[in-house]
Amino acid sequence: MKVAVAGASGYAGGEVLRWLQRHPEVEIGAVTAGGNAGSRLSSVHPHLFSLGGRVLEETTPDVLGGHDVVVLALPHGHSAAVAEALGDEVVVIDCGADFRLRSEAAWTTFYDTPYAGSWAYGLPELPLSGGGRGREALGGTSRIAVPGCYPTAVTLAMAPGLASGVVEAEDVVVVAASGTSGAGKSLKPHLLGAEVMGSMSPYGVGGGHRHTPEIEQNLSAAAGSTATVSFTPTLAPMPRGILATCTARVAAGTTADMVREAWRAAYADELFVHLLEPGAWPSTAHVTGSNHVEVQVTLDERAGRVIAIAAIDNLAKGTAGAAVQCLNLAVGLPESTGLLGSGVAP
Amino acid sequence: MKVAVAGASGYAGGEVLRWLQRHPEVEIGAVTAGGNAGSRLSSVHPHLFSLGGRVLEETTPDVLGGHDVVVLALPHGHSAAVAEALGDEVVVIDCGADFRLRSEAAWTTFYDTPYAGSWAYGLPELPLSGGGRGREALGGTSRIAVPGCYPTAVTLAMAPGLASGVVEAEDVVVVAASGTSGAGKSLKPHLLGAEVMGSMSPYGVGGGHRHTPEIEQNLSAAAGSTATVSFTPTLAPMPRGILATCTARVAAGTTADMVREAWRAAYADELFVHLLEPGAWPSTAHVTGSNHVEVQVTLDERAGRVIAIAAIDNLAKGTAGAAVQCLNLAVGLPESTGLLGSGVAP
Amino acid sequence: MKVAVAGASGYAGGEVLRWLQRHPEVEIGAVTAGGNAGSRLSSVHPHLFSLGGRVLEETTPDVLGGHDVVVLALPHGHSAAVAEALGDEVVVIDCGADFRLRSEAAWTTFYDTPYAGSWAYGLPELPLSGGGRGREALGGTSRIAVPGCYPTAVTLAMAPGLASGVVEAEDVVVVAASGTSGAGKSLKPHLLGAEVMGSMSPYGVGGGHRHTPEIEQNLSAAAGSTATVSFTPTLAPMPRGILATCTARVAAGTTADMVREAWRAAYADELFVHLLEPGAWPSTAHVTGSNHVEVQVTLDERAGRVIAIAAIDNLAKGTAGAAVQCLNLAVGLPESTGLLGSGVAP
Amino acid sequence: MKVAVAGASGYAGGEVLRWLQRHPEVEIGAVTAGGNAGSRLSSVHPHLFSLGGRVLEETTPDVLGGHDVVVLALPHGHSAAVAEALGDEVVVIDCGADFRLRSEAAWTTFYDTPYAGSWAYGLPELPLSGGGRGREALGGTSRIAVPGCYPTAVTLAMAPGLASGVVEAEDVVVVAASGTSGAGKSLKPHLLGAEVMGSMSPYGVGGGHRHTPEIEQNLSAAAGSTATVSFTPTLAPMPRGILATCTARVAAGTTADMVREAWRAAYADELFVHLLEPGAWPSTAHVTGSNHVEVQVTLDERAGRVIAIAAIDNLAKGTAGAAVQCLNLAVGLPESTGLLGSGVAP
Repeated sequence: MKVAVAGASGYAGGEVLRWLQRHPEVEIGAVTAGGNAGSRLSSVHPHLFSLGGRVLEETTPDVLGGHDVVVLALPHGHSAAVAEALGDEVVVIDCGADFRLRSEAAWTTFYDTPYAGSWAYGLPELPLSGGGRGREALGGTSRIAVPGCYPTAVTLAMAPGLASGVVEAEDVVVVAASGTSGAGKSLKPHLLGAEVMGSMSPYGVGGGHRHTPEIEQNLSAAAGSTATVSFTPTLAPMPRGILATCTARVAAGTTADMVREAWRAAYADELFVHLLEPGAWPSTAHVTGSNHVEVQVTLDERAGRVIAIAAIDNLAKGTAGAAVQCLNLAVGLPESTGLLGSGVAP
Repeated sequence: MKVAVAGASGYAGGEVLRWLQRHPEVEIGAVTAGGNAGSRLSSVHPHLFSLGGRVLEETTPDVLGGHDVVVLALPHGHSAAVAEALGDEVVVIDCGADFRLRSEAAWTTFYDTPYAGSWAYGLPELPLSGGGRGREALGGTSRIAVPGCYPTAVTLAMAPGLASGVVEAEDVVVVAASGTSGAGKSLKPHLLGAEVMGSMSPYGVGGGHRHTPEIEQNLSAAAGSTATVSFTPTLAPMPRGILATCTARVAAGTTADMVREAWRAAYADELFVHLLEPGAWPSTAHVTGSNHVEVQVTLDERAGRVIAIAAIDNLAKGTAGAAVQCLNLAVGLPESTGLLGSGVAP
Repeated sequence: MKVAVAGASGYAGGEVLRWLQRHPEVEIGAVTAGGNAGSRLSSVHPHLFSLGGRVLEETTPDVLGGHDVVVLALPHGHSAAVAEALGDEVVVIDCGADFRLRSEAAWTTFYDTPYAGSWAYGLPELPLSGGGRGREALGGTSRIAVPGCYPTAVTLAMAPGLASGVVEAEDVVVVAASGTSGAGKSLKPHLLGAEVMGSMSPYGVGGGHRHTPEIEQNLSAAAGSTATVSFTPTLAPMPRGILATCTARVAAGTTADMVREAWRAAYADELFVHLLEPGAWPSTAHVTGSNHVEVQVTLDERAGRVIAIAAIDNLAKGTAGAAVQCLNLAVGLPESTGLLGSGVAP
Repeated sequence: MKVAVAGASGYAGGEVLRWLQRHPEVEIGAVTAGGNAGSRLSSVHPHLFSLGGRVLEETTPDVLGGHDVVVLALPHGHSAAVAEALGDEVVVIDCGADFRLRSEAAWTTFYDTPYAGSWAYGLPELPLSGGGRGREALGGTSRIAVPGCYPTAVTLAMAPGLASGVVEAEDVVVVAASGTSGAGKSLKPHLLGAEVMGSMSPYGVGGGHRHTPEIEQNLSAAAGSTATVSFTPTLAPMPRGILATCTARVAAGTTADMVREAWRAAYADELFVHLLEPGAWPSTAHVTGSNHVEVQVTLDERAGRVIAIAAIDNLAKGTAGAAVQCLNLAVGLPESTGLLGSGVAP
């Protein structure tokens, strides 16, 4: 299986290459970029030793032609044109936001580019209202939108409670901390190391972050009714990782045991989502570099809220690992092919 | 004014000494410790050059006698006995939790030592229901309990909304990130540098953290009614700082302008609490090493919640700076004596 | 091939398990510990999801019996007794220092336990005076001492110059920075996260660090004459990684081209050691989590010194990756089996 | 005393303002910038609360006129023109490199702008060959060049040995680690937080760093003969701080006691330079935010080298603290005015 990566010079693209390298069924084909076209891969991703001699090519239909799979890691707004030029028989996995939202109105409100439509949403483990899973939409599909990093963490944290009815969907409150690679390789002063180290700071506060409608879309799909989310992202002094702390009002009559059972049942058969033993709590360090997700949940009876927390690696399960998981489902390989293995800790 | 510090070998005690050094009216007297008694101060706080030659003494009534002020930075449960041995004319400022809670039931539920009673609560800027401020209880007092670090950040973030009635008190949700000095100089594996760096992780989830009743006590005092708080603390990979993200349901009929005006009015005359310009957001890095507090607030109309965020230095405004501020009030000095000056950034 | 790990609860042991998990020919057998025996692996290495249910057993001959390979990650002084109880047909790979030094006098000077002897030294890429490589001593061996982390970095940085004669061996000066996992999971105040972050500090200064004689042993083997090294290790605020900056006087008549050619020739055929393009410099971040080594060299003509710099992951190529590389050589597998793959960056 | 700061929007300029704020004899006048002129200070230095409302003005003679002192924190090559426009009676303190080097040839080799000449060199504690100190050249001077951050650390580490003759000047080897604020507020990919955290990497290797001739100038002044230095700077994952590890061959006949006595005598009367007790070692964390310097020295008899190590805060004693110290000397105030106080640790 020959796989091209378009937009390979950013953090997401580099991570896609890191995972494809490990994949036993993948031959890496073209690697393309925008402004970095013509550079050797070693100059933008020095850690990818075995690919270092490759030269980044332009992102054109010619260069991307002749592959079985094309993974897109492009800036928002560029995926549609690239995908259209590829035949329907080519599997296209988009790490960008362009095809994630099913509501054109939500897209228009939160993004400033024309609505491109929506593709199958690539969160295999998503527990759906009524009993199914996200992966059911992915087998044999040739167009998949990889979820955003925050939506992945938040959704996997809270969806079991919504799908099972033990929490209410109307007033979900989320505060999430992300490593700074989540902001991409952007040359902005507040992302400089000297500013980042020692700093926790919020951004996109008050409902304006673009991942908000995607989170609500997912939680609504789990709940079977409209979920409303207050979402506050924060930047944490670490390169990778998302810790999403999510709370929702517990449904009337729900006990702590019922809460735990809802989460246990949701993930009992999931390879990558680990509900921790009671008393243990997720840490981004435990999943760094891996496709694993740590989840924990508890009921605060006094406050009447369930607190569900997930830790992921924003570039791995939050982007590139998820892309490979989707790729596996699309082409009919076992879902975990090339994705097992532990994170790097300490 | 001669000031002794009991429990000077921990992070809180060292920070108290750092601030007392700068204070123009203070002569540092005895510095005492438990297990570290007999050591030179330079061996536990090498950054305190001018005090490095001092030797830590035992924490006894004799050693602490003869001072105008004694600052306690002791483990929980030790303050009452030490304070009793000091005359009423001695000003005692307790950085520990022992005298913070007015409810014996709350104390008993959250701490496992006998209830010691309550002292004047040392949060001068606290806006109270009905119009007063926390500082009114502090002038001329000889016993003051310094607030906990999380309660300081959370209270200063959200109290203006409660005191003004623009937010509801029944369902406050708080997620706060703290630097690891907040855990003290404890030799526990999860506090090792190799574990901490790259790691965001929660603890005390589900309402069990001991600062929860103190937060509720403060927010209730601001609201004039019982506040209920879901509080989740997290550990962030930085030495110092707390970022508290707090949300509450907006009161019916409240506009964004009313929200902003509530916070503006609350802090217009406060030297240490800075409501940022719209669009700017707090960062722990901006206040590191200083007694300053950054606050920002916004209304998420879609979610029906006000989000108020504060950044403090947990050891400064969160502990030792607050102790000096209380000391100033207790002895009748201008409240900001020895406390001005910027944080260290970047 | 059934492999046991003795001393699996520390950072080195955990990393050995991480690499063994990935190894296609390895079945992980017993995992043992000292004080942590009886604990589940998930409690000490939560990142090793697939092994989390395993229980740490006591380190006894019975438990370690019946394996093809035993990897030791024990505190210094414990390896000899454990190894003796295993038959000669069992391959024993020791990550500790006990069998690294060929000089009993050097051992006695730098360590305070009785001399245990020396085993084959597990640095396959070591260029030897006269033309051979370290790996020649490792094929079919059943007892291998894995090099220390600093010696690995320093030796791979400077040995090509010594083996080729372009630098002098008499006055090698090394300053190396290590991530704090290099100090192990030791509960010491200076290793707490709050102390480590923001701190660069030296230790073992003046020739006292125990890796000094091992570095000299290696450099002497490369030079074919006695090397003398001034070695200063420093602790850096990062979890993993060693950056070793090594200088030596250039030999008379040596040009910059001759220097570069010496290093190029030494590593042209090495899979894991990468001499960077001129102008690129090693970074510990590029090799984090991988068995790769970055090396760069230059000649400072004004100062008359060659500067050679290497970056490794102290737990990977510096310990556990090297252990697996040795294991492969010992049992006759391709040297890189289970060891390829990129580090995790950014 | 009215003091203007030209180039106030960078890290150095911001730190100069932080120190000037604390200075009891200083009134801060104009604050100027290049591209940031017109911005409020709060937008570039949000931590400087009391100055936040100030607006950055253009760096012109008119704006800078009417001050007693002007501190320059400009990019290299801009200081001469600005200084010429100010009268000789105005004290000008230049934090840039333009007037540091006394050798035009050295300037031309290492910088690519025309040689501007040299001013009094602002390292008061520099022990000179023959017995004097650097401060002797600074009293009553109206033009002072503040030393570079690396030269400050390296010089204070090693000069006592050179001035006293216990080490040789011909083969000094220095490896120094700097926090990333040392690279300024430059928008370069390798300075992004995601790249910096977890990374130690060298730069300017092989004698090319521009601080090399300045280090040699200082060490030569201490030795009374030409010093030759191999200097390798490295970037460390921390915002501030320099740890300079310096070695030189010990002079024949020198004992460990003689080495210690040389350093003790050099700094016995210095307020800001602290020779640590034997067994204690410098840490950048101990001096963060302060004007203090930690120094330690030892003799490695086996290697025949003295190792001297210094820790400073690159922005404080390495730039802005030094600027204020020079200002005090220039105007006849006690040298430590406004400069005492401890660093922020942990």
